[in-house]
Amino acid sequence: MAQSKGTVVLAYSGGLDTSCILVWLKEQGYDVVAYLANIGQKEDFEAARKKALALGAKKVYIEDVSREFVEQFIWPAVQANALYEDRYLLGTALARPCIARRLVEIAQHEGAQHVAHGATGKGNDQVRFELSCYALCPEIKVVAPWRMPEFYQRFPGRRELMDYAKKHGIPVPVTPQTPWSMDENLMHISYEAGILENPKNQAPPGLYTKTCDPANSPDAPDVLEIKFERGVPVKVTNTGDGATRSTALELFVYLNDIAGKHGVGRIDIVENRFVGMKSRGIYETPAGTILYHAHLDIEAFTMDREVRKIKQGLSLKFSELVYNGFWHSPECEFLRECIGRSQEPVVGTVRLSVFKGQVYILGRESPRSLYNEELVSMNVQGDYEPADATGFININSLRLKEYHRLQSKVTVKQDE
Amino acid sequence: MAQSKGTVVLAYSGGLDTSCILVWLKEQGYDVVAYLANIGQKEDFEAARKKALALGAKKVYIEDVSREFVEQFIWPAVQANALYEDRYLLGTALARPCIARRLVEIAQHEGAQHVAHGATGKGNDQVRFELSCYALCPEIKVVAPWRMPEFYQRFPGRRELMDYAKKHGIPVPVTPQTPWSMDENLMHISYEAGILENPKNQAPPGLYTKTCDPANSPDAPDVLEIKFERGVPVKVTNTGDGATRSTALELFVYLNDIAGKHGVGRIDIVENRFVGMKSRGIYETPAGTILYHAHLDIEAFTMDREVRKIKQGLSLKFSELVYNGFWHSPECEFLRECIGRSQEPVVGTVRLSVFKGQVYILGRESPRSLYNEELVSMNVQGDYEPADATGFININSLRLKEYHRLQSKVTVKQDE
Amino acid sequence: MAQSKGTVVLAYSGGLDTSCILVWLKEQGYDVVAYLANIGQKEDFEAARKKALALGAKKVYIEDVSREFVEQFIWPAVQANALYEDRYLLGTALARPCIARRLVEIAQHEGAQHVAHGATGKGNDQVRFELSCYALCPEIKVVAPWRMPEFYQRFPGRRELMDYAKKHGIPVPVTPQTPWSMDENLMHISYEAGILENPKNQAPPGLYTKTCDPANSPDAPDVLEIKFERGVPVKVTNTGDGATRSTALELFVYLNDIAGKHGVGRIDIVENRFVGMKSRGIYETPAGTILYHAHLDIEAFTMDREVRKIKQGLSLKFSELVYNGFWHSPECEFLRECIGRSQEPVVGTVRLSVFKGQVYILGRESPRSLYNEELVSMNVQGDYEPADATGFININSLRLKEYHRLQSKVTVKQDE
Amino acid sequence: MAQSKGTVVLAYSGGLDTSCILVWLKEQGYDVVAYLANIGQKEDFEAARKKALALGAKKVYIEDVSREFVEQFIWPAVQANALYEDRYLLGTALARPCIARRLVEIAQHEGAQHVAHGATGKGNDQVRFELSCYALCPEIKVVAPWRMPEFYQRFPGRRELMDYAKKHGIPVPVTPQTPWSMDENLMHISYEAGILENPKNQAPPGLYTKTCDPANSPDAPDVLEIKFERGVPVKVTNTGDGATRSTALELFVYLNDIAGKHGVGRIDIVENRFVGMKSRGIYETPAGTILYHAHLDIEAFTMDREVRKIKQGLSLKFSELVYNGFWHSPECEFLRECIGRSQEPVVGTVRLSVFKGQVYILGRESPRSLYNEELVSMNVQGDYEPADATGFININSLRLKEYHRLQSKVTVKQDE
Repeated sequence: MAQSKGTVVLAYSGGLDTSCILVWLKEQGYDVVAYLANIGQKEDFEAARKKALALGAKKVYIEDVSREFVEQFIWPAVQANALYEDRYLLGTALARPCIARRLVEIAQHEGAQHVAHGATGKGNDQVRFELSCYALCPEIKVVAPWRMPEFYQRFPGRRELMDYAKKHGIPVPVTPQTPWSMDENLMHISYEAGILENPKNQAPPGLYTKTCDPANSPDAPDVLEIKFERGVPVKVTNTGDGATRSTALELFVYLNDIAGKHGVGRIDIVENRFVGMKSRGIYETPAGTILYHAHLDIEAFTMDREVRKIKQGLSLKFSELVYNGFWHSPECEFLRECIGRSQEPVVGTVRLSVFKGQVYILGRESPRSLYNEELVSMNVQGDYEPADATGFININSLRLKEYHRLQSKVTVKQDE
Repeated sequence: MAQSKGTVVLAYSGGLDTSCILVWLKEQGYDVVAYLANIGQKEDFEAARKKALALGAKKVYIEDVSREFVEQFIWPAVQANALYEDRYLLGTALARPCIARRLVEIAQHEGAQHVAHGATGKGNDQVRFELSCYALCPEIKVVAPWRMPEFYQRFPGRRELMDYAKKHGIPVPVTPQTPWSMDENLMHISYEAGILENPKNQAPPGLYTKTCDPANSPDAPDVLEIKFERGVPVKVTNTGDGATRSTALELFVYLNDIAGKHGVGRIDIVENRFVGMKSRGIYETPAGTILYHAHLDIEAFTMDREVRKIKQGLSLKFSELVYNGFWHSPECEFLRECIGRSQEPVVGTVRLSVFKGQVYILGRESPRSLYNEELVSMNVQGDYEPADATGFININSLRLKEYHRLQSKVTVKQDE
Repeated sequence: MAQSKGTVVLAYSGGLDTSCILVWLKEQGYDVVAYLANIGQKEDFEAARKKALALGAKKVYIEDVSREFVEQFIWPAVQANALYEDRYLLGTALARPCIARRLVEIAQHEGAQHVAHGATGKGNDQVRFELSCYALCPEIKVVAPWRMPEFYQRFPGRRELMDYAKKHGIPVPVTPQTPWSMDENLMHISYEAGILENPKNQAPPGLYTKTCDPANSPDAPDVLEIKFERGVPVKVTNTGDGATRSTALELFVYLNDIAGKHGVGRIDIVENRFVGMKSRGIYETPAGTILYHAHLDIEAFTMDREVRKIKQGLSLKFSELVYNGFWHSPECEFLRECIGRSQEPVVGTVRLSVFKGQVYILGRESPRSLYNEELVSMNVQGDYEPADATGFININSLRLKEYHRLQSKVTVKQDE
Repeated sequence: MAQSKGTVVLAYSGGLDTSCILVWLKEQGYDVVAYLANIGQKEDFEAARKKALALGAKKVYIEDVSREFVEQFIWPAVQANALYEDRYLLGTALARPCIARRLVEIAQHEGAQHVAHGATGKGNDQVRFELSCYALCPEIKVVAPWRMPEFYQRFPGRRELMDYAKKHGIPVPVTPQTPWSMDENLMHISYEAGILENPKNQAPPGLYTKTCDPANSPDAPDVLEIKFERGVPVKVTNTGDGATRSTALELFVYLNDIAGKHGVGRIDIVENRFVGMKSRGIYETPAGTILYHAHLDIEAFTMDREVRKIKQGLSLKFSELVYNGFWHSPECEFLRECIGRSQEPVVGTVRLSVFKGQVYILGRESPRSLYNEELVSMNVQGDYEPADATGFININSLRLKEYHRLQSKVTVKQDE
């Protein structure tokens, strides 16, 4: 065994990869502390703890970060209507800085100089993990085995990992591996790689795990009322059975249930990774999809048009930063503050129906709405003077008329 | 009768409002030429012609502008992924400049100094009509009765219009009026005003006319392949029955049929009008919704990431301009050229499923794709050197580390 | 005399125009309260008070708003590096909402239903005044004589105003009128109209009043040190004579003196008015020009690169809004808060030289700087690993290589 | 000597660093082709050729790229009003892709697999060089000695370079080295590092080489007329002596002369490098500064307001891309096309004065101007109806009034 390299805190998933990494890190001379974040994925955490200890982890942290994930990471994304490249609700990208923050805290608590993770060398997650770590603790050293030749050349494929596992007593999964990889948390699950790498291949029917196939989903909708304060959902009521949820985590879990039952939140996209390549991903984001639509609606109802436009630009930038791994950065912090400020008036209740893969907005009300029924009414003049619109149009047309005038002049000259 | 005020070309719809306006304009001393654009709405055009003539129109133009509407107005919007305030596909906003352009041409052909329309004084359409007219023909005079006190004070409500109609032999609609107003064209239909003015009121079930209720739509999807060239659909194939459509208009009509049958394209929103008020609108945009999703997908597959980001900003601006009525403006023309330029590589075929109100992307292929399956593969290293990612992350973290360093220094100082 | 129309508060300048307006408003049946804002212009305020009373003003308010102008309007513009169309420092645009705010307050205090101003019907100032008034007091009625036919048809030119003045005992200026119009406040003076309307005409040498001709300015510079906190100047020191100024108003006046003495702050531009026409303006902004350069420098020194980029976008929007008259709007308030937030670390001292019409930055220092001399040094490696740059460049080039690869493929195909 | 590694084309400057690199590359087993770009710097090119051959270069290319530098790189920057971080005219950043393009062409012509450069590992230039090379020739290999430990550890300081030079017969500069480094081309010269690394240190008086000290510059201005077509200068006339220049290169050189004589174009800034650190640079950009001001003016005079606003956003992005080294990228190419399209109407002549470090715009004229003297005139009503402005303001205030109404309601509620 090599000379001791000190302690490393490993972001451990309980799966084959990070189990092999755990053992390999020990081989390299590290004391390994395993950290497994419970961020809402389906997992037998106690089994994972035992496994890590059995593999030689000096210590195992299993931390439930679900609540802070919802309140401190998902909620700001809801406020922002965060969407990467017009489609992706950022489920994985939001989870990484939440996991990494705790990873760094544990490293500091344990006096570890290193952290390690099992993210691959071509993906976004390595960037998200490491930028978070460096931003929060500049002196930390990151060990990324999948970027180290001594590791990735030893394990060019799954077979070599399996051999290594068998040799070192690492339990090997009993269920056959899916021909794609998955990453799950409370907000979403992603499917990529393997047979999905061919962007023409349709996702096989059995792939989805978080949402029901809309073809088999209930034939009657669930109708929900979602109440927002400061742009964040504070209460959901099912108008059918009267069920309500009011705490952030319970509310989000409940929306996941309802949306999942009705097949809401599936997408199949090609996206641009930060490292410069296009990749294909399939995602399920049930609750996130409902909240995206509901928040858009209550925001449009309560926010001034021009504030909204500015905020929309900030959100575009925010989404890009989150995707690229810059959650813990001065610019992202700045954007969260600005966006947060914009959400003060975003108060009210949205009524919507969830049905066969879709979310339908049905109506909305708010004590802070800028909607003025009397002003907009076709039957009431209200405080509105129609003749003003004439002046408004005329002044707006001035520039267009001047442009036309010049174009004509130029064209005539060219014709001469 | 008043002294002749010359000829006015009236944008005539065949309905009660513009029929009354036609007669009223004659009363005011205008010679009225009626112009009815066939832009894909359901209408008995021949009956409308007879009606206009019967009411005293000097001449009636009925012009089918459907094809130019699709090719010259909808296609640029598809290329732009045009969406106003994240939700509205701009069905009405795209139609207005198409109708207005022909209106001006007819006025010029007829030697008319005036054009008239029946748009209300609180809405967007007056602006869209008139900015188009002024931009294309600065010397034209617009007559907008709904902004003239002598008109709107005479007709404070529908009853007065009805009385006027009866008095002047204007045929009155036999079917009872819906308690909301509608505007239809090939791309969409809008519902607003009346009982919909209360934003909390759910749309009544019988309201929708262009799409089937998803609850009653077929239990099996239609799977389509849409082929794009330069960001514009050039062929659609139904993989079920092998049906294909290749010309712009036929293709669009076919997509309307398929989408309508599966209940695709319904939204209920509150939006911000250019004149400064919020309004509530319910829209059906069947084909437009399919094309929005399909184009987003093929564009993401073929366009460089950074070009896409710039183009996304241009599209946001484009959507706002179109909504506000600035289609015929130097800036909108500039944007169309820039966006058009970005679409050169947007070539390929998207496969999608239309089902129960939803559009699901299933896969895509393209000869111009920037997607590199070997590069992204988890199993092949390709031309990618994982160690490079280390440098990439480290350099990207430099700024974050410096920021942290300073923050710590400042915090320490403040603590002292 | 007409029936009483109630009280109007007139934004009074003491000049010929608003004196005539004062008398004319009385003729129309208004009780007139005159309000003259001391916003730093050269004016005999007591003479103006007597004049207004002599002309029949019921009451005269002369209010020194210079300090709030600097602290509440100029400072936010300095923080924003506000610049309209890359050149105009917004001197007039910043003053209007400051004057209008007090105008509304006086109206409310006097129980007046109306306010009036002497701004012309083609300019920006009418918009700036009125949007401010309406935003702060929606029920106020604005009387804008220069847009009322009964006024502007009566006074088509200066001669008619002079005649009216003579007839009504309004003192007529004894000095001959300049062949251009001027507007002055603490921040700047503008020259426009008259002989300047021809954009080819050079400004005559005697035009400038706030700055010395650089040809005649001192042959030795003044060297200043300007200290900033939260992006706002808090102290200026003249390193030559040791003079210092620390309160906002004194500091700004002092910078006006120094800059004026050295001929700093002259521009001659064509700009785009909000009402849609281009106009030509000549401006002198002495202190504002020094502060623009100084703030840019200290901000670049202390603000994170990416925060700066976002803030730059917000400032562009802010400048446009201020120019167009939207200071008192939800979006401008939002921007001020966001920009203000960005200024927290903008602390430090800039050393600069003022000489012959120019401001030269000489150096800067700050306790909050993100500049790291060791990191950037060519002679010290510091915490920087040069090999990381290789990975950084390689990953950044990935996308470019892919694009080239595709271009070659496409070109080859086309050649075949 | 090591085994042959093939041919490398070295971007050679003739100075000590790249001379040592040349010899070192040979030591490493490369055949070295030296390429020295004449991009307008002061240099004895023939002496450099002999030196390179004497040091063992297999071949020496000395290429005059000045003209293409002006026409293909500086002109697009002039069209864009390109400015990095509000101050830097991008002199070095524009030169790099011009030099690198030829570097790649020579490599391809020589069948070389490698290119090399002498840029340091902390700077922007390495990125600019290499991204250009990779974008134009993805399979090229870049050798960057200053990032290779075997090189930079051997040469930690200038002394070691000097020793190496003496040992290998490399001529050593006879003039003492300036305590800062310089980079010069036709557009600008930069000074950085050494004593300038302390951002507080004022530039020593003798530093500047391209511009006269304004304290000693002529006491009378030069007045120039610059004629633009498509946003590019096509003729300059000195109204004093009637001198004219019409070709791109001559015109630019002439403007450098005039601006240099009057001390125009000096700045001292702290900027943000792409690799994440702040650096301090002092620049002289004589002709570039005149053209920046002149182009801004003619553009404002001829371009529609809203087109300008969109183009301004594109230019901001363009400047950032150029600074970061992405000239040869799909997005920068896209921006150049869009910006180029915007320049069609940018035609006309600007009259300006160059004096004591400043450029003063005096007037402008154009056959394509959108400036309408009659429209803007205070004395002529023209086609403008003042009453329209009332409607324009009222409609624009609608939203503000609604916002106020709501704020009052909310405030009242909170007070209760």
